[in-house]
Amino acid sequence: MTAAPKAVKKVVLAYSGGLDTSIILKWLQETYNAEVVTFTADLGQGEELEPARNKALMLGIKPENIFIEDLREEFVRDYVFPMFRANAVYEGIYLLGTSIARPLISKKQIEIAKKVGADAVCHGATGKGNDQVRFELGYYALQPGIKIIAPWREWAFKGREELLKFARDHQIPVAKDKEGEAPFSVDANLLHSSSEGKVLEDPAVKAPELVYQRTISPMAAPDKVTTIKIGFEKGDAVSLDGKKLSPATLLKALNDLGRDNGIGRIDLVENRFVGMKSRGVYETPGGTILLAAHRAIESITLDRGAAHLKDEIMPRYAELIYNGFWFAPEREMLQALIDKSQEHVEGEVTLELYKGNVITVGRESPKSLYSPTLVTFEDDKGAYDQKDAQGFIKLNALRLRTLGSRKRK
Amino acid sequence: MTAAPKAVKKVVLAYSGGLDTSIILKWLQETYNAEVVTFTADLGQGEELEPARNKALMLGIKPENIFIEDLREEFVRDYVFPMFRANAVYEGIYLLGTSIARPLISKKQIEIAKKVGADAVCHGATGKGNDQVRFELGYYALQPGIKIIAPWREWAFKGREELLKFARDHQIPVAKDKEGEAPFSVDANLLHSSSEGKVLEDPAVKAPELVYQRTISPMAAPDKVTTIKIGFEKGDAVSLDGKKLSPATLLKALNDLGRDNGIGRIDLVENRFVGMKSRGVYETPGGTILLAAHRAIESITLDRGAAHLKDEIMPRYAELIYNGFWFAPEREMLQALIDKSQEHVEGEVTLELYKGNVITVGRESPKSLYSPTLVTFEDDKGAYDQKDAQGFIKLNALRLRTLGSRKRK
Amino acid sequence: MTAAPKAVKKVVLAYSGGLDTSIILKWLQETYNAEVVTFTADLGQGEELEPARNKALMLGIKPENIFIEDLREEFVRDYVFPMFRANAVYEGIYLLGTSIARPLISKKQIEIAKKVGADAVCHGATGKGNDQVRFELGYYALQPGIKIIAPWREWAFKGREELLKFARDHQIPVAKDKEGEAPFSVDANLLHSSSEGKVLEDPAVKAPELVYQRTISPMAAPDKVTTIKIGFEKGDAVSLDGKKLSPATLLKALNDLGRDNGIGRIDLVENRFVGMKSRGVYETPGGTILLAAHRAIESITLDRGAAHLKDEIMPRYAELIYNGFWFAPEREMLQALIDKSQEHVEGEVTLELYKGNVITVGRESPKSLYSPTLVTFEDDKGAYDQKDAQGFIKLNALRLRTLGSRKRK
Amino acid sequence: MTAAPKAVKKVVLAYSGGLDTSIILKWLQETYNAEVVTFTADLGQGEELEPARNKALMLGIKPENIFIEDLREEFVRDYVFPMFRANAVYEGIYLLGTSIARPLISKKQIEIAKKVGADAVCHGATGKGNDQVRFELGYYALQPGIKIIAPWREWAFKGREELLKFARDHQIPVAKDKEGEAPFSVDANLLHSSSEGKVLEDPAVKAPELVYQRTISPMAAPDKVTTIKIGFEKGDAVSLDGKKLSPATLLKALNDLGRDNGIGRIDLVENRFVGMKSRGVYETPGGTILLAAHRAIESITLDRGAAHLKDEIMPRYAELIYNGFWFAPEREMLQALIDKSQEHVEGEVTLELYKGNVITVGRESPKSLYSPTLVTFEDDKGAYDQKDAQGFIKLNALRLRTLGSRKRK
Repeated sequence: MTAAPKAVKKVVLAYSGGLDTSIILKWLQETYNAEVVTFTADLGQGEELEPARNKALMLGIKPENIFIEDLREEFVRDYVFPMFRANAVYEGIYLLGTSIARPLISKKQIEIAKKVGADAVCHGATGKGNDQVRFELGYYALQPGIKIIAPWREWAFKGREELLKFARDHQIPVAKDKEGEAPFSVDANLLHSSSEGKVLEDPAVKAPELVYQRTISPMAAPDKVTTIKIGFEKGDAVSLDGKKLSPATLLKALNDLGRDNGIGRIDLVENRFVGMKSRGVYETPGGTILLAAHRAIESITLDRGAAHLKDEIMPRYAELIYNGFWFAPEREMLQALIDKSQEHVEGEVTLELYKGNVITVGRESPKSLYSPTLVTFEDDKGAYDQKDAQGFIKLNALRLRTLGSRKRK
Repeated sequence: MTAAPKAVKKVVLAYSGGLDTSIILKWLQETYNAEVVTFTADLGQGEELEPARNKALMLGIKPENIFIEDLREEFVRDYVFPMFRANAVYEGIYLLGTSIARPLISKKQIEIAKKVGADAVCHGATGKGNDQVRFELGYYALQPGIKIIAPWREWAFKGREELLKFARDHQIPVAKDKEGEAPFSVDANLLHSSSEGKVLEDPAVKAPELVYQRTISPMAAPDKVTTIKIGFEKGDAVSLDGKKLSPATLLKALNDLGRDNGIGRIDLVENRFVGMKSRGVYETPGGTILLAAHRAIESITLDRGAAHLKDEIMPRYAELIYNGFWFAPEREMLQALIDKSQEHVEGEVTLELYKGNVITVGRESPKSLYSPTLVTFEDDKGAYDQKDAQGFIKLNALRLRTLGSRKRK
Repeated sequence: MTAAPKAVKKVVLAYSGGLDTSIILKWLQETYNAEVVTFTADLGQGEELEPARNKALMLGIKPENIFIEDLREEFVRDYVFPMFRANAVYEGIYLLGTSIARPLISKKQIEIAKKVGADAVCHGATGKGNDQVRFELGYYALQPGIKIIAPWREWAFKGREELLKFARDHQIPVAKDKEGEAPFSVDANLLHSSSEGKVLEDPAVKAPELVYQRTISPMAAPDKVTTIKIGFEKGDAVSLDGKKLSPATLLKALNDLGRDNGIGRIDLVENRFVGMKSRGVYETPGGTILLAAHRAIESITLDRGAAHLKDEIMPRYAELIYNGFWFAPEREMLQALIDKSQEHVEGEVTLELYKGNVITVGRESPKSLYSPTLVTFEDDKGAYDQKDAQGFIKLNALRLRTLGSRKRK
Repeated sequence: MTAAPKAVKKVVLAYSGGLDTSIILKWLQETYNAEVVTFTADLGQGEELEPARNKALMLGIKPENIFIEDLREEFVRDYVFPMFRANAVYEGIYLLGTSIARPLISKKQIEIAKKVGADAVCHGATGKGNDQVRFELGYYALQPGIKIIAPWREWAFKGREELLKFARDHQIPVAKDKEGEAPFSVDANLLHSSSEGKVLEDPAVKAPELVYQRTISPMAAPDKVTTIKIGFEKGDAVSLDGKKLSPATLLKALNDLGRDNGIGRIDLVENRFVGMKSRGVYETPGGTILLAAHRAIESITLDRGAAHLKDEIMPRYAELIYNGFWFAPEREMLQALIDKSQEHVEGEVTLELYKGNVITVGRESPKSLYSPTLVTFEDDKGAYDQKDAQGFIKLNALRLRTLGSRKRK
């Protein structure tokens, strides 16, 4: 079924500098005889970018074909924060850390393709996962006529050993620890790290400590409470302990706090868009804190009707992001709805971080809708007339009484 | 506005034996000159019931008019468990511990009213809260023509001091600690305890430790991991560490485990059905563990389509329960949908409990839909053809490409 | 229960000039001893406004307290058209003609109240209907502290005869045909006419022809086809048969076309927000044509994801408008979602009008997403690769196959 | 890309007896060298089945391999009626007449495959349409390991001429009118007829009269009103004009009434699951009448909460059926919800049929929830206390007032 590749002149590769995308780079040159343009992005995965440049050069990429970009602020500001405005959680638990990074990479690859006149783009995601879908839906939405190369679905390598042989045959350095089967595979960015694969394949068996990348365990965290304050404006976090921070700087600081307090680990079985269940381990230290804080500030600044509507559409919104439909009109429509709700979501939340716990202890806002006068058990001086409750209940009950009367017939 | 009460001959009062419902009891006798029937239920609130009988006798209730019932098993089996099948959470955080108890009390009061020929029912909920709605929607749905007496909305007492005076005037014992203003009010049953009121009225201020009733704090919990296994059948918990337990016994055991490990506390601001925001502190130790376990067993036994549909309708379902519409047809319709999904939700989940954390570490099921063969990075022997992904993506992308082409015009 | 009215100094009355609101006018003066300000709006109900001015003068209203405004364009542009962008239909059939007019009247009354320094507003809706809710939610949302007077819920008149006596006693002219019981009551504006009441109270009995106000019956309509073209921009109708028309002018023209062709009658039983079912007869000639045309232009310009999301949220949106929550944040959020979808909804629709039928026969747009190349049974020159369908189906089927395998175990 | 076909021993073909499936029959024998089993079903498409038997024999099918079944009652009872309980309409207009027939055919093919020990199934749907998806999702759900043959995606014929040549070469009779390009293609069953294709490809151009198969036009219909009564039990139609009829007989009678009165034609552009828009003409005479009648009987027997929940989930339910997910658990869950609501949906609806119009003029039920006492403008003798409306409105307004106060700050 590996059709003879269509002619490709120039291809923009999402290039990490690691072993796998280096193999892809060489395979592209060889299979397509195409000019390869590399794109390496800093999304906060915690790796230096300059080694990727050197490696690309070493593999024969022309300097003008090497694109390296620091996307951390754009990533948090235009992707992570809009998503957190929705309190988006997939299947009740997953904070969408991998899903939300893919559209940005797609977008940048297409921008570079237009700039350099490339006719193709290429990614290193496998044929069983969600990431291939997320990358490719992004490419197609932004450049409908683009040619997409997905090496993992195309090449003939059978198993890891053949890949490594190809690497060695092409002078691609293979680190010692890459020999043999990897026990798990990893994705990382400023929002999270994920781990999937061999050692996690039996969902009945506890994940070994070694798969965790960026957090210590609750058990290993210090036995002391760290109290922080997060400030919000229009639904986005803007300050930590009273200090204004840029989006990426703030998320980085929350990641550090989360890591040190054993916060943000989850171990789950999820449903992939391509149809099977998979088991993964995710670490989202800063995001876990942020979600709790955002819900808390919304609790005093968001009207009930707005809040409940948001909760009802959230699973759909999260599913769209998980499935790769960031650039679809229905995601943009839901975003418009969500953003409309966030105008007055501002104020400050106090949280205690302690051994895996994120505990909301206070929230305050100049835009608060919470009224002690209305809610008090004490004399409220007429703010609320308890007599109104009777009419409220009786009309809400009217249809139930009518139903009850029918039953009795 | 206190209209002259309509004539009432016999009234069934939800009677706790406490000060407030004792005052109501006397007030009913005096105001309506009605025969009072008391109903006291054990929903696992952790209080003896016999003192309520003695107090009722002492206040002049005839023995045949005193009804006391242990509803713990019925409560968990027919109310708590069906609700947990839905993973119901109100406003992202509240496990509906108070809300779910009210319909059962309403139902029992109406049953007693029919048995004793009473023409009215009475509850002790205030005119500002949700509970009055929940009680009364239940009464009306089950007995459309019933007369409802809600003393807190009717009587003329101004403030706590007048109430206490009435109590003393009528030989109702007033415990020393009830003198003065209560710092907070409490509701409790086998699923949870809630606290609301004076010391909690400023949502910016941390709740004092003394409001917590049934859990120790994560900080006070022992520095050791407790590992447990919960077994499920048809979506309901049926065993703990391999031992079959009745619904109430099981929830009680989970409560003990939760309490000892600092699990299940929340501090929130919520939106009441009657229109204002209120701040509460809830403790749901066993329920918090149960929710995590139920999601985990669903993660391997529930199909994606079923799981996502459940997630989408859940906020509506939770809202219905919160607002008191347990006996409404739309709640029953949603329950039919949810129950339909739970047929194969069985198996066992392994959890670690540690200082406020409930950590899922394993799940297994004879009905598992998780397939290591499908998901493996290794050779899957043809279970999944990676080539299929291309067609899948291309047809999912088709409409986005058409849109992209329009943009470019 | 009729509490002694609180002191009111100046009240803005929604005044039609008819008998009922004239009675209210006098009753306000007498009961509240308040200065009455009248507001009479032209929403296209088809009545002259100057007689209302004369009548108000005659009833003792000062000239500077008489406000008369032509709201037809604002009504259609800012209320009717935004609602039609959503294809809003209540309970599958009702085009919300009365519901959508109430918020605008509320808004204008509050604006006038601010201008003249009135402390109260008053409407003539009864205590059993939806309109009282719609008016009052509008008042409260826009001016939370306003005093609302709802005479029908307050006054002591028992039945129509007492009202008419009050009218005669106060020199309010009573037309001959208002004597005796009205067989039905009517509301009308540029979007529709509604009829409810006595002759319609048995839903098993056909509505008599005399209740229809603004349409001829399909049977009475001429036996000939009228073909029209409606043009759209950003989801709103802008032209008829190629001629640009203002919103109100266009709707008026469609009403004429609908009336002449027997279009837009419905006879239904609906569920009121206050809890009971009611039977009504509605006529929405132009709106019925507009809905068909809007769906048709969307069918070629709206993406599937956008269209289906709109369809899913529509019943909620319609319910909000029906219940009077136009000024609620959740309605505004849904509007933001809907409006986001309409950017490219432009083009022209051809319709045949014939004896009650609105038949879509053509639609075209410069923004069309319909592609004959993609859909053709003929050679499509590679626009669509039929081989892709296999992968698409296989991955969509994967979870069903996994489920099927479980069943077989 | 036409991979060498995997070995197939016995294949069950959905066989209509027409030219296309006869070509497929021969092509299967030739390409796969497999034993072909034909399945021909009567779903009310209006064609004799015996000619299909003769043709199959003539093409060399063994008598024991020819399966012919009358599925009309099963089709209406177990597929059409459950769907109509939901008032299912796709994209606001399409009554899903083709979609609902496919799952039943899939199910029967799989049953036969099990009976005769076949390892493959085959259908005649093209690679661009929805039907391939519907058939194959059904096959896979019911028999996960089945081999599916989709000739239109596999064979190498280029265009109609090559197909006809293959037919002539294999002694398959080709009717004169099948020569040349077909102006449109047709599907039919007891619920509807659909037409798609060449003459309809420009959505701006009116469909020619000749594409309509089973209805006369409103213009051609007689100028007289036909009044009918449809009776319902548990949400399903059970009688016509007081006479009990079986499901298929009743739908047939409604089809005749619809046809004669020009009812049930639509001309639309729809969004296919495979990603493109297509234009079709559908005729659903009886279904159009049935939908109006079902909504009418629900209007007096269904509670508001139930009715609105049904309306909200309907678009999702319709989408699932359209996309072919009849056998998916989420469709079954929604069906459980819908069926739960229909218990008391019984009674009789009176309709007028007139030149394309279906006019509801009356509805009555022993289970009616409509109460003239509640709704009357006259004295209701205390059934409804208008004073209750004030409390109802004030508590519904409370959050809006709080919001309004914030805006004013």
